[in-house]
Amino acid sequence: MSRLSYRDATAADLGFIVGLIVDDNVAPTADRPDQPDHPGYLAALAAIDADPNQRLVIAEYDGQPVGTLQLSFIPGIARLGQFRCIIEAVHIVPTRRNLGLGGELIRWAIDQARDRGCGLVQLTSNKKRLDAHRFYERLGFAKSHEGFKLAL
Amino acid sequence: MSRLSYRDATAADLGFIVGLIVDDNVAPTADRPDQPDHPGYLAALAAIDADPNQRLVIAEYDGQPVGTLQLSFIPGIARLGQFRCIIEAVHIVPTRRNLGLGGELIRWAIDQARDRGCGLVQLTSNKKRLDAHRFYERLGFAKSHEGFKLAL
Repeated sequence: MSRLSYRDATAADLGFIVGLIVDDNVAPTADRPDQPDHPGYLAALAAIDADPNQRLVIAEYDGQPVGTLQLSFIPGIARLGQFRCIIEAVHIVPTRRNLGLGGELIRWAIDQARDRGCGLVQLTSNKKRLDAHRFYERLGFAKSHEGFKLAL
Repeated sequence: MSRLSYRDATAADLGFIVGLIVDDNVAPTADRPDQPDHPGYLAALAAIDADPNQRLVIAEYDGQPVGTLQLSFIPGIARLGQFRCIIEAVHIVPTRRNLGLGGELIRWAIDQARDRGCGLVQLTSNKKRLDAHRFYERLGFAKSHEGFKLAL
């Protein structure tokens, strides 16, 4: 039974999303939850909206936003030209954790990837997030790769 | 001094690219280097060409293709709405390895990400590829994340 409903994020959701990014961060961040109308956020949302291969999603529970994630559908040559789906920026509000909503959200994301014909779903998770790693492995993901980042 | 030159891949490069994918794979693959005109490959190349946030690149040395990679420029809310660049499908032909060309290719990719205003470059590498991990760390990447994959 699905308890969550899903819709694309709008500018009115930016405060909610940025607040979760800051709350969940394991590293210092320049983000400004007090400035949800910062031009950088509005430009990013416009870029996501303009790109049919990007979806920024709000998950609602009892009519209230409780989570978010971003899906990116990426064409590629490997595997006979299969698309892959990258999941980024997965967050559930602190007051609604440990209810299984995160698992429901990720299973929904996997279904979206399947519906778009993706052959692979992938994501990275900071090495400090040990609970998240167990969570993704329970959902069937293999911790098969190292994730490298370079800040510019 | 730059020894490599760069151009976007065309259908004529698919045999070269798929051959490198198969040669370099650490897992079984369904790819068919003998069928570079497979409809799946042609559709993927068309999807890449149609998307201004995707680039499939051929690196040439002495007028011959010696390497390839794909760049994906992904909008996102975090970091005041910074784009990130994902590098995928990095390959150098076996006969041209250990000449430093891979490092040159990745440094060029980082420059492309910077030119596009990305705040972050990221990639994943199979845990079996220990040489590749040292290579990316020498180029300044931090092995900060676990990479999770789920085949559909």
